[in-house]
Amino acid sequence: MTREQIVEEIRKKKSYLCVGLDTDISKIPVHLLQEEDPVFSFNKALIDATQAYCVSYKINTAFYEAQGIKGWQSMEKTLNYIPSNIFTIADAKRGDIGNTSTQYAKAFFEQMHFDSITVAPYMGKDSVKPFLDVENKWTIVLGLTSNEGAFDFQYQKNTQDKELYKQVIETVSTWGTPKNLMFVIGATKTDQLEAVRRLIPDHFLLVPGVGAQGGSLEEVSRIGLNKDIGLLINVSRQIIYAGNGTDFADKARLEAMKMQQSMQQLAGLS
Amino acid sequence: MTREQIVEEIRKKKSYLCVGLDTDISKIPVHLLQEEDPVFSFNKALIDATQAYCVSYKINTAFYEAQGIKGWQSMEKTLNYIPSNIFTIADAKRGDIGNTSTQYAKAFFEQMHFDSITVAPYMGKDSVKPFLDVENKWTIVLGLTSNEGAFDFQYQKNTQDKELYKQVIETVSTWGTPKNLMFVIGATKTDQLEAVRRLIPDHFLLVPGVGAQGGSLEEVSRIGLNKDIGLLINVSRQIIYAGNGTDFADKARLEAMKMQQSMQQLAGLS
Repeated sequence: MTREQIVEEIRKKKSYLCVGLDTDISKIPVHLLQEEDPVFSFNKALIDATQAYCVSYKINTAFYEAQGIKGWQSMEKTLNYIPSNIFTIADAKRGDIGNTSTQYAKAFFEQMHFDSITVAPYMGKDSVKPFLDVENKWTIVLGLTSNEGAFDFQYQKNTQDKELYKQVIETVSTWGTPKNLMFVIGATKTDQLEAVRRLIPDHFLLVPGVGAQGGSLEEVSRIGLNKDIGLLINVSRQIIYAGNGTDFADKARLEAMKMQQSMQQLAGLS
Repeated sequence: MTREQIVEEIRKKKSYLCVGLDTDISKIPVHLLQEEDPVFSFNKALIDATQAYCVSYKINTAFYEAQGIKGWQSMEKTLNYIPSNIFTIADAKRGDIGNTSTQYAKAFFEQMHFDSITVAPYMGKDSVKPFLDVENKWTIVLGLTSNEGAFDFQYQKNTQDKELYKQVIETVSTWGTPKNLMFVIGATKTDQLEAVRRLIPDHFLLVPGVGAQGGSLEEVSRIGLNKDIGLLINVSRQIIYAGNGTDFADKARLEAMKMQQSMQQLAGLS
């Protein structure tokens, strides 16, 4: 999926919402447990309910791997069910030496047909390049994450008084372009978002942490929006677990619609 | 598997060899491609041939994920075929926010029964703790990796003139103990291995990079051995692709035996 196509979808739907399918089988409505593939049934209903309001789905691979082969099957079925105009993210946080990252790229871009994958930067250029080298696919590198543990290393200043996350963003941004590279920037770190925007005014940012983790949609939008919108704001729990009865999909739809309406207003999309 | 059990196995087999099952279906002997599960057939023969000479098998998850569900099945079958006295490593380089890392821990420690998993440190404490919290399991955190990309961020010095990899090792070592935590330290970085051993004299180190990547078994052993041996040296390609005919397992056996004999001598195991 090209940048132009993503931006077009955003303008058409007046939304930069990404719905996070972090589907935990222990949290889905009990009536679904009788289905052959409860996780897929849950996701399918959520996709039907929310696709008018979002431009992206992010599949958190951990929740599927935790179910073994059955989980991997649920992931593939979910991915294949997502309409092709919606940008898909394998939130997999992969990254290894070159020949191994090439295998991960194969797993997520060839074996499955995700549009993008999240990648950890610790192992450097040869761990990221195999993803960037795949045509028409996106690599989304961890910049500043939304969790408490971000403070352990990402804020460490180097001898030029520059925090690691800034250095990661500066360096990694030379390996790709705003047309095949995005960064993860946590919504809980709005003070830093301004600095990030100065470093990379053009790149799309994938922003987790709005909702259950406490990040503010208004703040992130005020600071992070650029001329192409440039944000994909991920919301998981607040949407997918909005209800836990037979009306769970309707409640999810309502949450997604509220988000879309806020985004339309915040970004002046009309 | 406890530290005592690992050390006992090392002393019994007079070896600290880990065989890396980075099984690439495009590189296995062609006669195996007729089998129902060529990857598992290859691994099974390798395990039969090398188990007398190694104390650990490391399964690089990328190579299995690249084959989709079939690959995940090959991985499970391979893991289940490894004798229980041999330490198993999921070389998966996972790591995410707390609730997600908990799912990864479930995937590799409950759904499958690996003894350990490799974890990336960038996201900090709450991304590593869910692995450390599982009893009788090991977390192996990336310290200094064996690839060229290690120079991009791991060597960056902070304001106290300390390289990132040292700071990662120092900080992460406070989250676990030498009984549930190891570090990955690349064999291609022997100059740094001495400094690592000063920081963590007691921890086991998982050392990739000997063989195809150019690291020296002698150098790593000279610098890295401690009173409990304290090393698991991984060799992948040099053993598993030693031959590519019908005698591939015999050739692998020979390579593993040579490694074991060198290790016996280098560590004075008798």
